[in-house]
Amino acid sequence: MTMPPPALPGMPFSEIDTPALIIDLDAFERNLKRMQDLALKYGVRVRAHAKTHKSPMIAHRQIAHGAVGVCCQKVSEAEVMVRGGVRDVLITNEIAGARKLERLAFLAREAHVALCTDSLQNVQDLAAAAARASVRLNVLVEIDCGGRRCGVEPGRPAAELAKVIAGSPHLTFAGLQAYYGSAQHFRTDAERRSAIASAGERVKETLAELDRAGLACPLITGAGTGTCEIEASSGIWNELQPGSYIFMDADYARNQKADGSRFDTFEHALFLLATVMSTPTSERAVIDAGHKALSNDSGFPEVPFLPGAKYHRPSDEHGVLDLTECEHRPQLGDKLLLIPGHCDPTVNLHDWYVCVRGFNTPDAHVEAVWPVAARGAIF
Amino acid sequence: MTMPPPALPGMPFSEIDTPALIIDLDAFERNLKRMQDLALKYGVRVRAHAKTHKSPMIAHRQIAHGAVGVCCQKVSEAEVMVRGGVRDVLITNEIAGARKLERLAFLAREAHVALCTDSLQNVQDLAAAAARASVRLNVLVEIDCGGRRCGVEPGRPAAELAKVIAGSPHLTFAGLQAYYGSAQHFRTDAERRSAIASAGERVKETLAELDRAGLACPLITGAGTGTCEIEASSGIWNELQPGSYIFMDADYARNQKADGSRFDTFEHALFLLATVMSTPTSERAVIDAGHKALSNDSGFPEVPFLPGAKYHRPSDEHGVLDLTECEHRPQLGDKLLLIPGHCDPTVNLHDWYVCVRGFNTPDAHVEAVWPVAARGAIF
Repeated sequence: MTMPPPALPGMPFSEIDTPALIIDLDAFERNLKRMQDLALKYGVRVRAHAKTHKSPMIAHRQIAHGAVGVCCQKVSEAEVMVRGGVRDVLITNEIAGARKLERLAFLAREAHVALCTDSLQNVQDLAAAAARASVRLNVLVEIDCGGRRCGVEPGRPAAELAKVIAGSPHLTFAGLQAYYGSAQHFRTDAERRSAIASAGERVKETLAELDRAGLACPLITGAGTGTCEIEASSGIWNELQPGSYIFMDADYARNQKADGSRFDTFEHALFLLATVMSTPTSERAVIDAGHKALSNDSGFPEVPFLPGAKYHRPSDEHGVLDLTECEHRPQLGDKLLLIPGHCDPTVNLHDWYVCVRGFNTPDAHVEAVWPVAARGAIF
Repeated sequence: MTMPPPALPGMPFSEIDTPALIIDLDAFERNLKRMQDLALKYGVRVRAHAKTHKSPMIAHRQIAHGAVGVCCQKVSEAEVMVRGGVRDVLITNEIAGARKLERLAFLAREAHVALCTDSLQNVQDLAAAAARASVRLNVLVEIDCGGRRCGVEPGRPAAELAKVIAGSPHLTFAGLQAYYGSAQHFRTDAERRSAIASAGERVKETLAELDRAGLACPLITGAGTGTCEIEASSGIWNELQPGSYIFMDADYARNQKADGSRFDTFEHALFLLATVMSTPTSERAVIDAGHKALSNDSGFPEVPFLPGAKYHRPSDEHGVLDLTECEHRPQLGDKLLLIPGHCDPTVNLHDWYVCVRGFNTPDAHVEAVWPVAARGAIF
């Protein structure tokens, strides 16, 4: 059921079939380096989030740039990473269901595996699964940092749960998961700083309770691309979990820096190449990329190299470009580059990355084709 | 890269892992029969749209219920159908790019293949590809029915294009593609009738010009699940292209019938089974299905068997259930059924259908597991 790749290594850029997910390798490598520099500057660990890229090929490049391992959201995603040679995986999520816990426990026989929890019942289920597989699982207590998704209340409830974990012969209390997802996309720097400051207070309140209970907390992990410099410089967190920084997307670019300018700490390195399949009027072109090639949950893609063009009215396999304000109108068969609105779920729609060297130059060519190995890993 | 299936044939319903795409086989088979009855009543052909299901297993069931073949949107989708034994495929779309046209022309050596066009340049490209493969391609002229996506203007521009097709030694003018996509989701019956009446006028205007040019028009094809009874009873269209009718989704259910009641011509037969992975407060449960398991482009899923529960605030791998108005609150590990907001792009996120017999009864069990064989077929 895997589709053939839209290009082969060595091909010139012009021969890539569409729709295709393109990595600008030079920008991607600069993003890897930028995150490494940030971590070194503040003396924190990076555990890159693999839910963004779903590719051991990329995970190994992140590890080569200093990452201690990867984060995953699903057991199946972790399985793909471990099979791809990654030795240290944190599932930044709660896992429910006997079959999944069994797979997870056995995965811990092959690699260093940790996961999060937020309830007593789940801790008991984890302990039972670990006992059956004769392993010791590393468990983090997830606290609600303000996002009102998963996580226990900080302070005493979190410390109570940590005590149960620490008291189980098959579990190790590994630390706190303190990730504030929605804060990543708060538009102003002040909003993001305020949210992470509040999350920091919740962590400190929890650390005080853990201390009172005589429990060491070796790890405080969290942060995403939008806020990671704030957590890194806080003196509270000691591990970052950024995902989107390697690619960036149109939604993250709508964040603002402290001076109000566009959030350009990381570069756009992921693009969707599409073909103009119809030009019914001079003010409208239709491209071959709709909901099945682009996830529009966080807004529409941008069209960076065709000034004035606006992507709108997507259907399943079509995207309409409004050319009203465009000076240079694309022709039937022309190929266009888009910046996806939201990189993670867009990547999950594709089987292949087409990795381009010399992007946007006359020498642009396909250097490699990498599988999106954990695409569809939702279990 | 295909994930293992979330269940195996023979398993009780309770053992299905999540997130899983579930077909209620009884409801699905009733939907197949309803469309067959509609086509027989009005004496029109059905060419079911495979972009909804992407499965030759389902295509063969539609053909057994009288469908003359299937529609596809992409060459790669058509390739999967032909490899799966389907002998007659219409690509209801324009295809641009030399490599795709070459694949399409060679596919026409293996099965009856037709496609749409809306420009002179594209007709010339099609003729060249057909000549190189020594085949004759069946080409329909797509007219803009009012949706302002692809399609030439009706009347003379459409007839002029048909003349060029008919004059090419490697192309056959096969008829008109007259599909009004956005009209499928106009909420009231009156709006849908008015839109299709207007589209019918455009078809008639084009037929008059074709007649003036001495060109026969054997096929007038179009219609989707929301309007197909209108086209079927019009006396104008002679082929229907419905896709979603086999599954239905929450968005189509928001359509109204003539008396203002919910559009229930077809039954919900597609569900997403999810697990409660966290219950942080009594008013909130978090399930393991977000943007990577459900396409929310046309609204959020419904939770039909948990009255009062509302799905909202999805993230990539989480969905939050608001339980404020719920009497029976789900527990950690409980499995819940959702009706996807939009079936086509949701199906495209999954590798497998879990086909259930005795759905919603104590005897519910997995009868079959079918691959979503053309998942990711976006080329």
